[in-house]
Amino acid sequence: MPSTLALRDVVAAVHSLRESTPLVQCLTNTVVAGFTANALLAAGASPAMVDNPREAPLLAAGASAVLVNTGTPQRDEVEAMHAAAAAAAEHGTPWVLDPVAVGALPWRTEVAAALLAHRPAVVRGNASEVLALAGASGGGRGVDAAHTAEQALDAAASLAATTGGVVAVSGAVDHVVAAPGGRTVVVRVTGGHPLLTRVTGTGCALGALCAAYAGTGGDLLTAAVAAHAHTAAAATLAAARAVRPGSFAVAWLDALDAVGEEPEASLAAAVELS
Amino acid sequence: MPSTLALRDVVAAVHSLRESTPLVQCLTNTVVAGFTANALLAAGASPAMVDNPREAPLLAAGASAVLVNTGTPQRDEVEAMHAAAAAAAEHGTPWVLDPVAVGALPWRTEVAAALLAHRPAVVRGNASEVLALAGASGGGRGVDAAHTAEQALDAAASLAATTGGVVAVSGAVDHVVAAPGGRTVVVRVTGGHPLLTRVTGTGCALGALCAAYAGTGGDLLTAAVAAHAHTAAAATLAAARAVRPGSFAVAWLDALDAVGEEPEASLAAAVELS
Amino acid sequence: MPSTLALRDVVAAVHSLRESTPLVQCLTNTVVAGFTANALLAAGASPAMVDNPREAPLLAAGASAVLVNTGTPQRDEVEAMHAAAAAAAEHGTPWVLDPVAVGALPWRTEVAAALLAHRPAVVRGNASEVLALAGASGGGRGVDAAHTAEQALDAAASLAATTGGVVAVSGAVDHVVAAPGGRTVVVRVTGGHPLLTRVTGTGCALGALCAAYAGTGGDLLTAAVAAHAHTAAAATLAAARAVRPGSFAVAWLDALDAVGEEPEASLAAAVELS
Repeated sequence: MPSTLALRDVVAAVHSLRESTPLVQCLTNTVVAGFTANALLAAGASPAMVDNPREAPLLAAGASAVLVNTGTPQRDEVEAMHAAAAAAAEHGTPWVLDPVAVGALPWRTEVAAALLAHRPAVVRGNASEVLALAGASGGGRGVDAAHTAEQALDAAASLAATTGGVVAVSGAVDHVVAAPGGRTVVVRVTGGHPLLTRVTGTGCALGALCAAYAGTGGDLLTAAVAAHAHTAAAATLAAARAVRPGSFAVAWLDALDAVGEEPEASLAAAVELS
Repeated sequence: MPSTLALRDVVAAVHSLRESTPLVQCLTNTVVAGFTANALLAAGASPAMVDNPREAPLLAAGASAVLVNTGTPQRDEVEAMHAAAAAAAEHGTPWVLDPVAVGALPWRTEVAAALLAHRPAVVRGNASEVLALAGASGGGRGVDAAHTAEQALDAAASLAATTGGVVAVSGAVDHVVAAPGGRTVVVRVTGGHPLLTRVTGTGCALGALCAAYAGTGGDLLTAAVAAHAHTAAAATLAAARAVRPGSFAVAWLDALDAVGEEPEASLAAAVELS
Repeated sequence: MPSTLALRDVVAAVHSLRESTPLVQCLTNTVVAGFTANALLAAGASPAMVDNPREAPLLAAGASAVLVNTGTPQRDEVEAMHAAAAAAAEHGTPWVLDPVAVGALPWRTEVAAALLAHRPAVVRGNASEVLALAGASGGGRGVDAAHTAEQALDAAASLAATTGGVVAVSGAVDHVVAAPGGRTVVVRVTGGHPLLTRVTGTGCALGALCAAYAGTGGDLLTAAVAAHAHTAAAATLAAARAVRPGSFAVAWLDALDAVGEEPEASLAAAVELS
């Protein structure tokens, strides 16, 4: 795992995504399922929204990557999440956990904590979710209030050490954290746009893009950073075309496509890594 | 509860929504969940789409308001609806019932009739749904055919007397009805656009906006009228930009945002109260 | 059933759809439910997304047509699919089977094969799905790899002979197949646009349009061809306005509306039958 990343590494990852068209199985919430599938298609991946317990583990064994998002859990979907994560772990399929509203609601907090046993390649959440998940798994302190990404860095590093994967804390500046061999590596992605928070599902789509990039077979830190950079660059492009949330959502999907075609120019103008 | 309303009361309600950003829990149908969340975000509220029976009552106790929409009921969601409405009633959280297709289909008619025991702050439906719901609860005559909002006024008043809340009958002219102390108060909202009926979920989003306005803590009649006026004004703005349903849906979300920023101008040009 | 079709037959079908506004009950997947309802509304039909086992058979008895799509099956929805297909068959309601991912995943393959007993008026899928469904029902050879529509023609004819209905194989060129009285009739629809494959739910919406046209009471071959031609012509119109997937999806919904208003000009410029 690298200890730092340059924009050219991200550009290479975007090209790799476009060439490999990874098959991304999504077990996600009903609010954003369509938008997530469209974001994956626009970015260059191939979505497979298979979330029933009878079929989910079978596909997870063969998919390029799996997304598990706890946005609107129901009994059968949660059974499917456990089975899919277990099958992914067994067959070496990288899988992403997006712990939506973990910490704020008790059942899904238990569900997400139990899923950690299957060692997600990437955990992607906001600061409060990452703090809560680290706490629920024994490594953190729970959620008190609203948190900044910086406040969740220790929890993210602890969680990354536990899973052996990457933990991404989304915020005004995204922090992507890994803990290889006892060290802590943090890559910050600056970019994006406040309108992303006015459209439902942009964070969930980012989780799906983390899975898509993890499914290309490259390094996990690069994958998670590339997903965040792709998302942020598309937001910058979209905000140049649309200033209100309805048209911004449409422009953002268009821009996910544009970034995939011309990553060098799009990323250099919109994103900063540190 | 006031016996009449002026546009300035609605303008004040829109400002109040923007300032308070109410947390609106939605138990709604899978067809419109994403569109509803986007409408709430565009209008200025904060959606929380929590509809499983394990977590729904917990959130209902603390949310600003709750929406229960019977569009695509399944067993677990219905269990969650009953639990959420009960918790909302117990903790004083205003909740809105949108009885989609009640009257036309038997199971959901029973579900909606039983939910009335928890006294929704607002019932919002079309004339046939309100007639059916009033009949199912002992106060009306059932559904015979297509009905105009005027034909549902007695049923709406009867239902409002039963719940102690407001009943809104949506149509070409919306009728918002309350029955304080034996009187019947009716406020008519004229505006909107026929393209609203060519986009799925605009009525369901209006139900969610009723919850958002009820969640700001003001008077329920003003809240329901403000939700209808906001929706109608946004439709007028959107129809000036888009003449077909796909682009109208996008323009309507943009316009929900614009009305929130400039309520005076937007509402005065587009809506009439009587 | 005719042995060939001219564009004027399709134009007549489009006018008939617009005049009759068929009520199309959809039991479809959660990813595309909203987009499907919007496509039906834009094209000129009236959607009813009723997919719970308590109400689905009741509506299927009286709807103009029923769509069953296996995209995201869960237990209750599958129970509803069986009940709705049985009720549709019993009451003479034409119903469409869209066997999403049949062949690739085992449970839904069994579900779809069992549904064939209720003799769908139209089966609409890609070549691999049609091959798998024909194989699962005893008439084909299973799915080996990616297939072209031409490779699925024998399987489609076999399936059409079994159901007595029409089988549509979607692809770069769509093949609509019927087998009246031992003959095989094939109508090819050329048109469409590759951007259709970059937007989730366009194929599922096409299945819903097959149901809408079947619900107007005309010939089933004409209905299926009209649905494919309407979809393809709208894609041609949309691609003249939008070159990326987010805005293409919006433009395609607008174009479904435009084709319905001006079918002659739209279809003649965009679609070829053979």
